[in-house]
Amino acid sequence: MRMRNKPWADDYIRDNSDIVPKNASSYKGEWKKLFANAQPLHVEIGTGKGQFIAGMGKQHPEYNFVGLELAKSVIVTAIEKVKTAEVENIRLVNADAQNITELFAENEVDKLYLNFSDPWPKNRHEKRRLTYKTFLEQYKQILVPNGEIVLKTDNQHLFEYSVVSFSKFGMELQEVTLDLHAMEDPLNVMTEYEEKFSGKGQPIYRCRAQFN
Amino acid sequence: MRMRNKPWADDYIRDNSDIVPKNASSYKGEWKKLFANAQPLHVEIGTGKGQFIAGMGKQHPEYNFVGLELAKSVIVTAIEKVKTAEVENIRLVNADAQNITELFAENEVDKLYLNFSDPWPKNRHEKRRLTYKTFLEQYKQILVPNGEIVLKTDNQHLFEYSVVSFSKFGMELQEVTLDLHAMEDPLNVMTEYEEKFSGKGQPIYRCRAQFN
Repeated sequence: MRMRNKPWADDYIRDNSDIVPKNASSYKGEWKKLFANAQPLHVEIGTGKGQFIAGMGKQHPEYNFVGLELAKSVIVTAIEKVKTAEVENIRLVNADAQNITELFAENEVDKLYLNFSDPWPKNRHEKRRLTYKTFLEQYKQILVPNGEIVLKTDNQHLFEYSVVSFSKFGMELQEVTLDLHAMEDPLNVMTEYEEKFSGKGQPIYRCRAQFN
Repeated sequence: MRMRNKPWADDYIRDNSDIVPKNASSYKGEWKKLFANAQPLHVEIGTGKGQFIAGMGKQHPEYNFVGLELAKSVIVTAIEKVKTAEVENIRLVNADAQNITELFAENEVDKLYLNFSDPWPKNRHEKRRLTYKTFLEQYKQILVPNGEIVLKTDNQHLFEYSVVSFSKFGMELQEVTLDLHAMEDPLNVMTEYEEKFSGKGQPIYRCRAQFN
């Protein structure tokens, strides 16, 4: 998503270190210390403007949430959303999935959300897709045994690719849904992107895959 | 599919025992003897009017094909299609998947096709779906090690269910395609049903799953 440059973003992020902790990687293995309650940790990769993580944080006070978002011009909106939600169980990190094992220790994460990741449609960019096997290896490291990935996307080819990639990695599919909004899951929290595209009649795909 | 009763069907099947061998289960473990060439055996469950198996037989002279169809009023059309195709590598059996292990011996089948199987949408009918685990156990028995199931359907829920069922059974997904006709696989042979529904714009789902 192309965003206007926001030169004040750096300052804004710095001023909200209660939500975006400084030196996030120093909490590796110790994220529980940052939260009021030592409870399961759920991580979203690609938090965008934060509607999903803010909604999840409110819906699930029994979990802690960390959202990763690389774009500074976008994470500032997520910070606002988290503030508005008035919850204590969400933190954000200005990072992407690339070095996720530097942020989280082995078995530190209970669940991982991949929401509307870049589909990288060209074959030669397969390795950049967040469900490529090298990423799965990293996710497996930081997730608890039998940890789960929940993927949502409106991109048919990324979905087809990801389901096969999960399976070939030895993961077990727990759920495959080809039209999430037709089934009306009352607990589904929409991302901004999801709201926009499902509103246009585009089906939203979801799957849950579990490591062995 | 509801068909008119065809009282002459029994006679017609009997008269074409070159295509529908009598006492099919007596060939268990010895299907190769029925064919001109001892080559890999592919089995279709639910052959219907035979367009798929006739097309596959022509496209793949390097394989032998056996099609199972329970409805007598339908299998007669399949017999006609096989005759018209003028190939030697197709046989039909008036049976369904229920007792497939009585028809084929261990490791006798190289590939299994499930085409537009009854979706049995009600939860209480789950056990009747041809991708329910008890069926997968039987398929695994008759298939060679690493044998493959190829599933095609226009039914979204059967597809979602089947992909998860394959995965939970420990099978590895090799391919998941959510809109077969958009990708235009030049080797895809359509069933009658597929031709009709994809002509109406209904997406056709396909997946290939491999036993370990």
